[in-house]
Amino acid sequence: MEDPFAPLAEAYEAWYETPLGAYVIGEEERALRALLPPGESLLEVGAGTGWWLRRLPYPRRVGLEASPAMLRVGRARTPEAEWVLGRAEALPFPEGSFDVVLLFTVLEFVEDVEKALEEARRVLRPGGALVVGVLEALSPWAALYRRLSERGVPPWAQARFLAREDLQALLGPPVAEGEAVFLAPEAHPPFPEADRAGRRAGNRPALYLGRW
Amino acid sequence: MEDPFAPLAEAYEAWYETPLGAYVIGEEERALRALLPPGESLLEVGAGTGWWLRRLPYPRRVGLEASPAMLRVGRARTPEAEWVLGRAEALPFPEGSFDVVLLFTVLEFVEDVEKALEEARRVLRPGGALVVGVLEALSPWAALYRRLSERGVPPWAQARFLAREDLQALLGPPVAEGEAVFLAPEAHPPFPEADRAGRRAGNRPALYLGRW
Repeated sequence: MEDPFAPLAEAYEAWYETPLGAYVIGEEERALRALLPPGESLLEVGAGTGWWLRRLPYPRRVGLEASPAMLRVGRARTPEAEWVLGRAEALPFPEGSFDVVLLFTVLEFVEDVEKALEEARRVLRPGGALVVGVLEALSPWAALYRRLSERGVPPWAQARFLAREDLQALLGPPVAEGEAVFLAPEAHPPFPEADRAGRRAGNRPALYLGRW
Repeated sequence: MEDPFAPLAEAYEAWYETPLGAYVIGEEERALRALLPPGESLLEVGAGTGWWLRRLPYPRRVGLEASPAMLRVGRARTPEAEWVLGRAEALPFPEGSFDVVLLFTVLEFVEDVEKALEEARRVLRPGGALVVGVLEALSPWAALYRRLSERGVPPWAQARFLAREDLQALLGPPVAEGEAVFLAPEAHPPFPEADRAGRRAGNRPALYLGRW
């Protein structure tokens, strides 16, 4: 099977250096940190280029990634993590291996969402935290990504779009929730003002996070 | 072929009586009126239940509608208009028949967008006005409609989504433009405030209108 992330790996983080991209990823980091519990070990399923693994404060960090291209970049940029090539639906770890398992906007790209969630729970220690983030299907960002998907633009051509309701139908009510990025892709600065406006306008956020 | 509007015809206008629906259709009417030129005759392609035909001030008003169910409701509610069952791709009128041809969120549902626009231009008198409105593909409303489309909800299951850029690629730069409804489907009142916030957040409007 082709790797839809192959053309994207090298430049994957470049957008975070634009003014809007920096604002967006900063807001997402704030929401993610607020939701992550303390612990010794974290597995990130779909760790990409290692953006979160470089930033999160767990002594043991493991990144599982299905795209060889992304994993190559991730391993080079984030050598302090352990990297494993593999699929979310078949995690190569014994049960109860991790305090925290993170799936950050990766269910959009897996083949089997239910199997991926089942595997995440299997490798979590009893009482551990499953933290899942999705690109909210009802946010203005999803409108843009759907349009790119329709046009065959990678990685969106292969994506599905999940709303918080879909996650809750799969996992039940979360223990805690987070949201970030209420502004739209064409917002102009100052972005904090645009973000507050997006919330007032009734926008769904680009990122919905839940902890189970 | 099945009529995807058949289950919707009777209740099609009911949403306009909800607080949000009334605000949305009011804003759309304001934008549409600002764009329509004076004239003797108007053809609305995809006239639905006659909502616009009842409101627009042209002495001769003709509604073309492809859904027998919608046309039946339209004819009963708007008897002052002439009603014709037919397809946008094959308008049963001689060339140069109308001062104004209106296509209001109907290109989303036709089989052949280019042919429908070609036909609209053919039946327009020289110097007449073609006015086209689309459900902006990048607005938060499109995110909602795409989700309904994916789930097979009529009429969205059969819909395509066009942005202003698509229209302009088909028709060239418009003579005049209009926009309405920057708030999102989950906005809460007061709606004028939510609408201003949506504009500030960088939302595309639910309705983009152009005159050619």
